[in-house]
Amino acid sequence: MKRILYDLAGADPNLRFSPYCWRTKLALAHKGLDYETVPWRMTEKDVIAFAGQGRVPVLVDGERTVSDSWAIATYLEQAYPDRPSLFGGPAATVVTRFVNTWADTTLHGGIIRLIVSDIARIVHDSDREYFRQSREQRFGMPLEQVTAGRDERVRAVRESLLPLRHIVSTQPYLAGDEPAYADYIVFGTFQWARCVSAFELLDREDAVAAWRERMLDRFGGLARRAPCAA
Amino acid sequence: MKRILYDLAGADPNLRFSPYCWRTKLALAHKGLDYETVPWRMTEKDVIAFAGQGRVPVLVDGERTVSDSWAIATYLEQAYPDRPSLFGGPAATVVTRFVNTWADTTLHGGIIRLIVSDIARIVHDSDREYFRQSREQRFGMPLEQVTAGRDERVRAVRESLLPLRHIVSTQPYLAGDEPAYADYIVFGTFQWARCVSAFELLDREDAVAAWRERMLDRFGGLARRAPCAA
Repeated sequence: MKRILYDLAGADPNLRFSPYCWRTKLALAHKGLDYETVPWRMTEKDVIAFAGQGRVPVLVDGERTVSDSWAIATYLEQAYPDRPSLFGGPAATVVTRFVNTWADTTLHGGIIRLIVSDIARIVHDSDREYFRQSREQRFGMPLEQVTAGRDERVRAVRESLLPLRHIVSTQPYLAGDEPAYADYIVFGTFQWARCVSAFELLDREDAVAAWRERMLDRFGGLARRAPCAA
Repeated sequence: MKRILYDLAGADPNLRFSPYCWRTKLALAHKGLDYETVPWRMTEKDVIAFAGQGRVPVLVDGERTVSDSWAIATYLEQAYPDRPSLFGGPAATVVTRFVNTWADTTLHGGIIRLIVSDIARIVHDSDREYFRQSREQRFGMPLEQVTAGRDERVRAVRESLLPLRHIVSTQPYLAGDEPAYADYIVFGTFQWARCVSAFELLDREDAVAAWRERMLDRFGGLARRAPCAA
């Protein structure tokens, strides 16, 4: 059975930078499931119209099509119960959703204001205008103005990582001794930043930086080997 | 077997306002365990010296003494496995720690800057100087200056609740259809604020406010019936 993941790509088709697609790729690796990726650009809405919406990740797993990284993770957990668990049971799944929304709001919201102008540089030509226009409308200013002063503002973002830092200071992964979907959620956002920008989000001494290194090494260095713009 | 909880009290001995003690009281209620409380003040370090440290909650459960709300919750889970689970399994326990650190850092850090001068008004005479001095040293300014402009600043705190809001917009409790320790953690912080200050943290229309109402009603209105300064 062929498994296909529509995966956001930049001008360089090997530059795969969506934080949500990274969550899915790590979830697939965790489950030990093979897949092929299709590089996809933001304006190719028609290509994934069959999924009933216009954003990636979209996973086509044989007969099944699933969109949205959270829905894909819970689908994989249900469809492949004999593979290593992404959550560790129903109660853990529910609480992992808190990590998911924290990453989508606090973490993503803080980081995008540090790197969005870098993203504008690496997107495919066909996405360039769409990306800039939609993001400048969202932020109400030119993207270069959004990221201005980031050397100062990065401190507040580092401060917002306290919940993560406390945990990975006392145990190797968010999920315990081994990583699970909670880790993939948060790491996806760091991998997105890493792929699109040379701007350093973390202090070298930060326990979060050490955790990120451990995550980069997992699955044979899946994330570390990924081409980055930096 | 007698179970005793040392519980932070204000000038009014019935005013019990520690967010961490609230976590423990709700955890005990969840487990259906009876207990008596001993009102305790911040400067009564000698009274709990037997616990090997100087902060509450301290739970004395027969022969066992346990301090720190997280340690108490995991102790109760282990000691009373036949009672309703606080976490729903080991994987959920680990991820619930993320909620715990988020509440201790982001949530507590945001809210204390809105209410700390109100706390100074309700603490016991014996704690008044200690509280003001230690907190003014921490914030580097008079407490009234810390809370100045809170009508404006409350917006940023409401914004920081997004991870919570997303979840309780789509399900009744953080932990799902019924509350569990993840809810008690976060609610403890709201109950603390509610007990010490009339300042309204939440918009009436906020899904978080509706969740708070549901929490106030649990266990026969345990938290709603608690005396508040407001």
